[in-house]
Amino acid sequence: MNLEIQTTTRTELIDITDSVRAIVKESGIKNGICVISTPHTTSAIIVNENERRLRVDILGMLETLVPENKSYAHNSIDNNADAHLRAVLLGMSEIIPIEDGHIILGTWQRILFVELDGPRNRNVNVTIIEK
Amino acid sequence: MNLEIQTTTRTELIDITDSVRAIVKESGIKNGICVISTPHTTSAIIVNENERRLRVDILGMLETLVPENKSYAHNSIDNNADAHLRAVLLGMSEIIPIEDGHIILGTWQRILFVELDGPRNRNVNVTIIEK
Amino acid sequence: MNLEIQTTTRTELIDITDSVRAIVKESGIKNGICVISTPHTTSAIIVNENERRLRVDILGMLETLVPENKSYAHNSIDNNADAHLRAVLLGMSEIIPIEDGHIILGTWQRILFVELDGPRNRNVNVTIIEK
Repeated sequence: MNLEIQTTTRTELIDITDSVRAIVKESGIKNGICVISTPHTTSAIIVNENERRLRVDILGMLETLVPENKSYAHNSIDNNADAHLRAVLLGMSEIIPIEDGHIILGTWQRILFVELDGPRNRNVNVTIIEK
Repeated sequence: MNLEIQTTTRTELIDITDSVRAIVKESGIKNGICVISTPHTTSAIIVNENERRLRVDILGMLETLVPENKSYAHNSIDNNADAHLRAVLLGMSEIIPIEDGHIILGTWQRILFVELDGPRNRNVNVTIIEK
Repeated sequence: MNLEIQTTTRTELIDITDSVRAIVKESGIKNGICVISTPHTTSAIIVNENERRLRVDILGMLETLVPENKSYAHNSIDNNADAHLRAVLLGMSEIIPIEDGHIILGTWQRILFVELDGPRNRNVNVTIIEK
């Protein structure tokens, strides 16, 4: 299954938990795993708390570790090396267990799509594997 | 299956390889994958060597990249932004292949639960998918 | 299935996409997931663009975040703590969806084996799970 996302700024975190939950419910699969992955090289999938100030801190950490305005070799081709590097650090997928027809997330866990070179139209692939 | 872990300090690495091995053995599943994931937003799962000095280096790297005492926005809500950010960097799950009834780990690989905001009672989910 | 890789320098990125594609094709499996994982503690698997300058930037980022020549505790045992730490940051595996017998990669996505302590003979495990 494919989720379509329209991002609105260069870097942002978008909560896709409810959409993933709906896909798992519709699948009718009771036990297994759900793999959430992005086919893009300048975006990422993470799982953590979706709290407004923490979202600011996550983007702040990325800017500290991989500054946007630094001299990168790839920028002679396409001016978005920082977005690729941040994507490599965060990873392109997450896996969530499914039990009794529901994804098993902890109290504070949310599935977040991380836009690193927006705004763009993006896709997220949701693959469900039965146990 | 659920593993219960009691951590004893704010940040530490706990080797859960033997517990995961036992769960895979009990499952009777011969070939597939084992997904080890944490439902918490201030802990992580990694796979690497469990060597005392390297454990110190891993925690040292986290302090260098995401210092505990820095001004984070989320800390006005809950004083643990560093733990969330470190969890985002390390990731919430790992996948290990299963062959002939055993998880396939390299000579030095161990499965490590990473406590980032302890001490707490923690859970780890182990999901086995048959091939 | 096992892929054998011979690396030629201390740190490098090797594109294994075509080998993974061939294994998935030979398996005859039409829908599911493909897990690519490394059994070593000083190498990693990532998915991103395979562009020459970006490969330089990725290794540059690793040197910035985890410098090779720094005082690490583990180096009193084995002089490669930086390689372990970089492997922890990047992760030991990636998962790619399979649809209609093909791995589903985005236009720019390639599967890259990351050597962090070469040159060595390395293995990569490819496990395919049917939906």
